[in-house]
Amino acid sequence: MIDNVAIVSIGDELINGFTVDTNSSWIAQKICQYRAISIKSKLTISDNKNEIIDKLDHLLNQNYRFIFITGGLGPTHDDITKDALKKYFDCDLVLNDNHFLYLKNKYNHHVSSDLNLIKEQSKILTLSQPIPNKEGVALGMMIEHKNTMIFVMPGVPLEMKHMFNDYIIPNYIEEYYQFQPKYITLLTTGIYESALYKILKNTIYSNKKEFTVSFLPSYTGVKIRLGLADISASLTSFKKQVMLDIGDYVYGYNDDKIESLVSDILINKSLTLSIAESCTGGYLSKRITDIPNSSKFFIGSIVSYSNKIKNKYLDISNQVLEDKGAVSREVALLMAQNIRKKFDTDIGISTTGISGPSGGTKDKPVGRIYIAIVFREHEIVKEFDLLPKRDKHREIAAHTAFNMLRLLIK
Amino acid sequence: MIDNVAIVSIGDELINGFTVDTNSSWIAQKICQYRAISIKSKLTISDNKNEIIDKLDHLLNQNYRFIFITGGLGPTHDDITKDALKKYFDCDLVLNDNHFLYLKNKYNHHVSSDLNLIKEQSKILTLSQPIPNKEGVALGMMIEHKNTMIFVMPGVPLEMKHMFNDYIIPNYIEEYYQFQPKYITLLTTGIYESALYKILKNTIYSNKKEFTVSFLPSYTGVKIRLGLADISASLTSFKKQVMLDIGDYVYGYNDDKIESLVSDILINKSLTLSIAESCTGGYLSKRITDIPNSSKFFIGSIVSYSNKIKNKYLDISNQVLEDKGAVSREVALLMAQNIRKKFDTDIGISTTGISGPSGGTKDKPVGRIYIAIVFREHEIVKEFDLLPKRDKHREIAAHTAFNMLRLLIK
Repeated sequence: MIDNVAIVSIGDELINGFTVDTNSSWIAQKICQYRAISIKSKLTISDNKNEIIDKLDHLLNQNYRFIFITGGLGPTHDDITKDALKKYFDCDLVLNDNHFLYLKNKYNHHVSSDLNLIKEQSKILTLSQPIPNKEGVALGMMIEHKNTMIFVMPGVPLEMKHMFNDYIIPNYIEEYYQFQPKYITLLTTGIYESALYKILKNTIYSNKKEFTVSFLPSYTGVKIRLGLADISASLTSFKKQVMLDIGDYVYGYNDDKIESLVSDILINKSLTLSIAESCTGGYLSKRITDIPNSSKFFIGSIVSYSNKIKNKYLDISNQVLEDKGAVSREVALLMAQNIRKKFDTDIGISTTGISGPSGGTKDKPVGRIYIAIVFREHEIVKEFDLLPKRDKHREIAAHTAFNMLRLLIK
Repeated sequence: MIDNVAIVSIGDELINGFTVDTNSSWIAQKICQYRAISIKSKLTISDNKNEIIDKLDHLLNQNYRFIFITGGLGPTHDDITKDALKKYFDCDLVLNDNHFLYLKNKYNHHVSSDLNLIKEQSKILTLSQPIPNKEGVALGMMIEHKNTMIFVMPGVPLEMKHMFNDYIIPNYIEEYYQFQPKYITLLTTGIYESALYKILKNTIYSNKKEFTVSFLPSYTGVKIRLGLADISASLTSFKKQVMLDIGDYVYGYNDDKIESLVSDILINKSLTLSIAESCTGGYLSKRITDIPNSSKFFIGSIVSYSNKIKNKYLDISNQVLEDKGAVSREVALLMAQNIRKKFDTDIGISTTGISGPSGGTKDKPVGRIYIAIVFREHEIVKEFDLLPKRDKHREIAAHTAFNMLRLLIK
């Protein structure tokens, strides 16, 4: 017996496409980690009272166990979720004294005329239970109707997430559903989908009653999503089996970021890093310094966007720049060697390429890039022809550089 | 008389939250630019034949003019959209010779065993019209049912967008609906929502029958979305009226990026730029080099993540670093002055701060940042206490730096 879930997002901003709805995906990912509970539909509705009432009525006739509603609880005139629910359930609003006091204390210093606002935001339907909001103003609600529990939360992601993690999960999910992740994602890079499929074909076939396997190709690699088809099976042991086949291509799991994995190795091995960037224009450095602990190993970088800087601050002679071209194997290697020397680090990485849209030649088309890594006695330079679209080029270049580094130092 | 639109996204990846649905937002933004046509609902369904049939049946009973369906047209076993439609409409599939030939020619070189796949992907419902797919393999469909037109497209964004732009818009939208953007967004920065509201209150009130005004605060500024309530009114003239009130705070419109606006000014005025980054770790340089033409004005940067690099390559004495601290007004100014001098540019920008999570002190808490700009006789250093969350800190820092630069050179 599986309990069904619907997720409803309310807001004109969402319906008109100005805001991409990330709340419903976030809730879905949380929910699908529990056994015997499954998301059946996701729905977006405009800030329109009749629409909300119509759609809610339709959902309530479909035997959902949970309906999660986000959005339209704020203080402005277009926030009408509470009004719509009040009309649908034909009941009154009641002030929640606890929340009102909590807000009064919290905003004590800079509110006076806004007391009314705080009061309105502390009111909930008489037939509802309050859901505390520690990150914002609007109080949430839980409404039980026949066999369905309706949770009403604000649309602000931070507020919704806290309500969900701190209140809904512990009180309504964890108590009744067993935690059992139904998916695990293997992140591969450097191998095509078709080649992976060939390797895994037999494993997939002989396990198909118990496990699903989806291939999700992207610009930076293929994700392989392993799913539970039979909830009595063990996803962990299936993962082990799959890893025996393709482990060499797997660099991480689920939401792992390749720069985090590289950072962990660098920190563990007490290695330091400097970067000389041309076409990636600071993007490698940015990705590395996204990691909170990066100051432990990352010293700095030179973004030598113009040849003048390559010459003057990376000591690459104008002769080499002219003879070989700024986008060349030779210049890439010199950039990595020299940044490492100058910044006195264990490792130096460099990129030089043509991200486009212009700058390509017959010999060196848009998309061409050279990536070099210098580490102790190792000197690697690789040539790639990546997707000739500027944003994708930079994205793939960074991923490729981090993967080259990972393979070298792991 | 308004024609209603429903957008349906199909896929287990979407329903389980692994992939955020951006297709439906993209379609919505396209559609809401036309008069007398309005999006009424967005729906996500899993790859389940009965679910698809149920939901489609419900939608077809609600008098929609258009239903746009994306997803589930691919060649793998979980792509069952076509099957579901076949069952619902109780009709056969027919091979579209044109598309089959087109694919055969296109993939001539590297396909032999895949001929069957290409054939399957070229079949559509007998009662449908084909929608060409020039970016992928799966042929799209248009099905007319009573007063509703159903468009079925692949879930791959690139393929869907081309079908929509090249075929659906010209044949089914532009012919029948007048182009009339219903929204314009003003991007403001450096002013609070409440202050903006105070300035605009009267203007909003006296125009409220014809126009809507929404305030959308974010970490980098408040967006003001002006909308048409009465489609006979002129959004352009209302925009002009609003700009008279708050023009000073508006840096752009709709999807404008602040670094693009800054780049335009730099190129127009033939000014060159270099950057010295500490806490932003390459993020300013990355944002600038996201712009295709940035090599026209951007020379390069030094990311001086460690003090050693600030000392050795930005010529900041260890005495100053020790006395004032790396995160200080003095060091920020020296960084901007020295990068400008060394890289020989018109403008030098610098950042030095504490992005967190650690590194804060009582005097200089996490979130503190100094941003300096040096341009001709102008030298500006500003201190900010930004949100002490690493990613947000960097985001706001970059936006703030670009805005300071914009105000100085515009």
